[in-house]
Amino acid sequence: MSSQFGDIFRISTFGESHGKSVGVVIDGCPPNIKIDWARVQHWLDRRRPGQSALTSTRQEADKVACYAGIEDGITLGTPIMLAVRNCDQRPSDYRNDILRPSHADYSYLAKYGLKPSSGGGRASARETVSRVAAAAIAERVIATIAPALEIIAWVDSVSDLQCNFTAEQRRKITPADIEANSIRCPDDSLAIEMQELITTAKDTGDTVGGCLAVSIRNCPAGLGEPVFDKLEAKLAHAMLSIPATKGFEIGSGFAGTKMSGSQHNDPYRSQNGKVITTSNNSGGVQGGISNGEEIFMRIACKPVSTVFKEQTTITTDRKPVKYTPKGRHDPCVLPRAVVVAEAMATLVIVDLLLQHKTRQLAN
Amino acid sequence: MSSQFGDIFRISTFGESHGKSVGVVIDGCPPNIKIDWARVQHWLDRRRPGQSALTSTRQEADKVACYAGIEDGITLGTPIMLAVRNCDQRPSDYRNDILRPSHADYSYLAKYGLKPSSGGGRASARETVSRVAAAAIAERVIATIAPALEIIAWVDSVSDLQCNFTAEQRRKITPADIEANSIRCPDDSLAIEMQELITTAKDTGDTVGGCLAVSIRNCPAGLGEPVFDKLEAKLAHAMLSIPATKGFEIGSGFAGTKMSGSQHNDPYRSQNGKVITTSNNSGGVQGGISNGEEIFMRIACKPVSTVFKEQTTITTDRKPVKYTPKGRHDPCVLPRAVVVAEAMATLVIVDLLLQHKTRQLAN
Amino acid sequence: MSSQFGDIFRISTFGESHGKSVGVVIDGCPPNIKIDWARVQHWLDRRRPGQSALTSTRQEADKVACYAGIEDGITLGTPIMLAVRNCDQRPSDYRNDILRPSHADYSYLAKYGLKPSSGGGRASARETVSRVAAAAIAERVIATIAPALEIIAWVDSVSDLQCNFTAEQRRKITPADIEANSIRCPDDSLAIEMQELITTAKDTGDTVGGCLAVSIRNCPAGLGEPVFDKLEAKLAHAMLSIPATKGFEIGSGFAGTKMSGSQHNDPYRSQNGKVITTSNNSGGVQGGISNGEEIFMRIACKPVSTVFKEQTTITTDRKPVKYTPKGRHDPCVLPRAVVVAEAMATLVIVDLLLQHKTRQLAN
Amino acid sequence: MSSQFGDIFRISTFGESHGKSVGVVIDGCPPNIKIDWARVQHWLDRRRPGQSALTSTRQEADKVACYAGIEDGITLGTPIMLAVRNCDQRPSDYRNDILRPSHADYSYLAKYGLKPSSGGGRASARETVSRVAAAAIAERVIATIAPALEIIAWVDSVSDLQCNFTAEQRRKITPADIEANSIRCPDDSLAIEMQELITTAKDTGDTVGGCLAVSIRNCPAGLGEPVFDKLEAKLAHAMLSIPATKGFEIGSGFAGTKMSGSQHNDPYRSQNGKVITTSNNSGGVQGGISNGEEIFMRIACKPVSTVFKEQTTITTDRKPVKYTPKGRHDPCVLPRAVVVAEAMATLVIVDLLLQHKTRQLAN
Repeated sequence: MSSQFGDIFRISTFGESHGKSVGVVIDGCPPNIKIDWARVQHWLDRRRPGQSALTSTRQEADKVACYAGIEDGITLGTPIMLAVRNCDQRPSDYRNDILRPSHADYSYLAKYGLKPSSGGGRASARETVSRVAAAAIAERVIATIAPALEIIAWVDSVSDLQCNFTAEQRRKITPADIEANSIRCPDDSLAIEMQELITTAKDTGDTVGGCLAVSIRNCPAGLGEPVFDKLEAKLAHAMLSIPATKGFEIGSGFAGTKMSGSQHNDPYRSQNGKVITTSNNSGGVQGGISNGEEIFMRIACKPVSTVFKEQTTITTDRKPVKYTPKGRHDPCVLPRAVVVAEAMATLVIVDLLLQHKTRQLAN
Repeated sequence: MSSQFGDIFRISTFGESHGKSVGVVIDGCPPNIKIDWARVQHWLDRRRPGQSALTSTRQEADKVACYAGIEDGITLGTPIMLAVRNCDQRPSDYRNDILRPSHADYSYLAKYGLKPSSGGGRASARETVSRVAAAAIAERVIATIAPALEIIAWVDSVSDLQCNFTAEQRRKITPADIEANSIRCPDDSLAIEMQELITTAKDTGDTVGGCLAVSIRNCPAGLGEPVFDKLEAKLAHAMLSIPATKGFEIGSGFAGTKMSGSQHNDPYRSQNGKVITTSNNSGGVQGGISNGEEIFMRIACKPVSTVFKEQTTITTDRKPVKYTPKGRHDPCVLPRAVVVAEAMATLVIVDLLLQHKTRQLAN
Repeated sequence: MSSQFGDIFRISTFGESHGKSVGVVIDGCPPNIKIDWARVQHWLDRRRPGQSALTSTRQEADKVACYAGIEDGITLGTPIMLAVRNCDQRPSDYRNDILRPSHADYSYLAKYGLKPSSGGGRASARETVSRVAAAAIAERVIATIAPALEIIAWVDSVSDLQCNFTAEQRRKITPADIEANSIRCPDDSLAIEMQELITTAKDTGDTVGGCLAVSIRNCPAGLGEPVFDKLEAKLAHAMLSIPATKGFEIGSGFAGTKMSGSQHNDPYRSQNGKVITTSNNSGGVQGGISNGEEIFMRIACKPVSTVFKEQTTITTDRKPVKYTPKGRHDPCVLPRAVVVAEAMATLVIVDLLLQHKTRQLAN
Repeated sequence: MSSQFGDIFRISTFGESHGKSVGVVIDGCPPNIKIDWARVQHWLDRRRPGQSALTSTRQEADKVACYAGIEDGITLGTPIMLAVRNCDQRPSDYRNDILRPSHADYSYLAKYGLKPSSGGGRASARETVSRVAAAAIAERVIATIAPALEIIAWVDSVSDLQCNFTAEQRRKITPADIEANSIRCPDDSLAIEMQELITTAKDTGDTVGGCLAVSIRNCPAGLGEPVFDKLEAKLAHAMLSIPATKGFEIGSGFAGTKMSGSQHNDPYRSQNGKVITTSNNSGGVQGGISNGEEIFMRIACKPVSTVFKEQTTITTDRKPVKYTPKGRHDPCVLPRAVVVAEAMATLVIVDLLLQHKTRQLAN
């Protein structure tokens, strides 16, 4: 289904970027989970536009309201509905017949036979508000089932500026390290270079891309389903559903294709009775199922399509046209996309944790 | 669900590598589709082991039989059941307590609490027989709905031997070019080098990885669903569900993260009334929906885990052990994985084509 | 899933009876469907409380608002979100520890481990607002695909007052006949008796039950899926999901069990080239698939559980207690349940019509 | 989906009545469940034709074979495939152009555009082999989660011969009581009358219908999902998917519509700390969720459509024709349908028990 995600903890999102509101219905959230609304709002604040000089100037407070499913901060087991009002929508910026390069104008038109005046609609990154709100609830469910599990994400590269953490350094990255700068890159000095690069791009009306890193720590072994719903398959699905993403790799990823099998293999050891591996080229999954090691993945994000330069394209009636965009856009989606990637990993994990309960009768 | 794929054309696969048989039930295949059994068998023959010196010596004829849903070569609209007998299974090769490095022995044990004597079970690439059989049926459905649509796959790299086609060269690759050598690499001279590399690895008991390329041509614009079921998200899910895969990229992929937005954008033009783009960094999708251009993706496959060298690992009761595998394995999965990637792309497309019919009342 | 219905036209409902609002997200509605908001509101007005002396005195205007998915009265193909504010909620009426006889207090407590102070929650008939709102959209989709198709429902019995229409009379019942009285019984003189019976029950603080009839006319032959998703199975599921329902029958139903096969069979005839049956004991379905005849079903509704008489029951801590309810309730749900049954039949049919498009490649 | 049932314990069935085989793939069965093959075969033997003078003379041993998912009698957690060979198929009995009255010939033709020569196809009761085989596995899962839970079914009426058990008598019915006669009616003297009635019908080439009763005892409170997936809605769906069924009622059912609310209500009492009700008009469900009382339902089965008398109908090309059937059929489906109803109740309960585990984090 187009706007649903998850088999057990299933979310249904709604809302156009320039419509009345965006939000989510969560079906299948267990009862008796304590929700801290300040924490939920914190998730949304990290995603919202206007939080730094590098993000869109669209002014949205993104204050979340709950309309169902939670009473006195406790989940009831019934559907949870969370919504955020759009305050600063400007549909008139989009009311034209131009097929913007690398936007979804044409593919939506081909699919639906219409080009709504409300702008980007569901193709806008504004729909990710719903994902982040849902993840803020999912996080509390995970904390109840697997308290040690931790999901963090950061900006791993911007254009050709690339973090180079050793595995050991990577394991020590904290949420505070990531939030220490507006880029959300835990390498502080690289973050400064990234910021300059983005500012330069912005000043020339251009945009840049980069890669996200997501790390899932202390995930119980045994998560994920064989064959089609492998953990990495679900994660790839989740990450490639985020606007502007073009690639996904787990563990050794594309670089691992150049290794030999004897280099790549991760031998098992016993450490205080716990099974561990001495390397982690697998990225925490074998046969599609978690093995208890760090689950590590990287996601490629293309440069933002809205460049404030004149471009040549065509209109809906096939006429050539010169086009310079209006609208308010980020010169680089990475710093905000960090939060969305974290949200999607959270939604994958909560669903697999709940599904796993149906596989284990002894628990 | 673990062993199901697709929303409309839904397949349920079954079968352990060293059990009685492997197969698939297809629910939701439209009626009145003509099936050519020689063509179905051809799909299976391209995937089966023992087809060249580079593949596993396991002897499986992989003769497919149909038990339901097709009569006189015509689909009935009822569930189709296809199965292949396992003939050369050797469960005794796997009846031990060793946790093989980078195999699924430990993660399956953690998940299910047992280590079946029948070997790799569902983690073996043998389960892909079911996918290929299902795709052979799906291909006929696609041919009915979108006759011009073509799906091809090939070996794009082995270790650091990488094809370097221009976009124009790539568009001209034919199935015959791919089948011209046992590597399934359409660059014939590179294929010879790849073959030598694999043979060398095999001779030393080692294995190699590489990348697959998949191209979907003449896909109608408008395919894919917004938000969670974007075309690239479904493709990534499908490809990362193939054993040994570690990465996925579409269009410009990871390389595109280093481009600027003004370089990356694909402007629209009108060509004989058809909307086209003058570049295709998007890889044929915008906003998760096909735009009519070539859908191009690459998939990273790790080197095979079964290396015929002594390795140090542990047993299920946490004791260190020296391990040299028995069993019959490919030194490189790429040539056979080509067929599975083609199958998975076929299964994604057939489902979206059928789903698309529910979105378009005028058609 | 608990609060979702439909495979293609999938609705997700939310909202507690005494929470902030009730509503629905519709995923999978085709684009370019024209919505008449007055008609949508008309559906809700027919369901709302306070519409006659026989219904609950709870004052809810039930004004529907659309937050996403429709622009200028045209569906966009994106998720539609419709919600209704609760205005006259009184959670304090329910803030106690009494297990009300034949209410869901105990079974919800057993399931969720809590007894929310907001009252009936999802067990209240107030959740049916969401179903009716969704059906008002679905009706427009049906009108586009199968313009002649008509779905009507009425009160067929109240207690032992039972309509006795011939098949021919039944076929002539119009929506206007049903709306002619506040009982929604197309037999006007029987409606007067029903009204007296309900009034008498209400005056003594008691309640009554009865049966609904639903008729689907001009349904194309070929709707419904073999085996598990037979048309009658989907309809039974839909109808038994309505609060207070205890039975479902289609065609000859329970009475038909006393007929012989030779009496019961419906022979085929050709009428102007159209295949018809000369009797309709099958109720319009054979093998789970519509045959083009009237689809006729009856639904049993128990008497309302809230009787304004003292009853003996227990509290959550197992103490005996005398209990006389507060709250506002209908003495008989039938007149309002008519609209909900109509809504559920509409939601089943729209889903099967859309699903059917994936089965028929020629169309 | 047409041939799938269940959300967690999901079965996919396949097989035409006169094709090669019928069977089922079970996805989502937990691992480490012990399967007793004699018990599985016992389920199938109770369903199979030819078991008494009252059933079809078709000779099918219905020996079940397992092709995947179970090793040494232990479920692996992977998909289970069970199949039964058709031995005595006679497609030639069905190779004609006659639209048999009250059979699915016409509705299938309308749906699929073809009339397969293999006969009833998926509309034949032979497909229920798959359901019964799946239920035999599901029963073992239930025994692991809820050992006291018991599901039994019996023939409650044949034509107008109706059992009249008090609630107390009903609770004491044992499987042995039911299997004591070939009718599967626990009232032995009534069973003799039923047998005579069926024999008489058979002798005149006619058929009879009747009602099944299903009782689920010791079901934990809290099972079922609010709103659309109420326990009674799932059961109704399951039962109405059985061939030849026309009605479903739970608890007081249709008779309850004539009671007043104060008569119908089931007050709560505490019995040794357990919450019970002093009557059970609700039939064990309130608000769609089990309350721990007996879940009692009745299912209406129409008389078999295949009467061995000449009937007038039409051919596929609309020509009138006299028709007397060939083929082998039961004069009354009730005794064998008992087993199918038991199977379907088992499949509903196993799925809800597994689903319930995802709702209860404390368990």
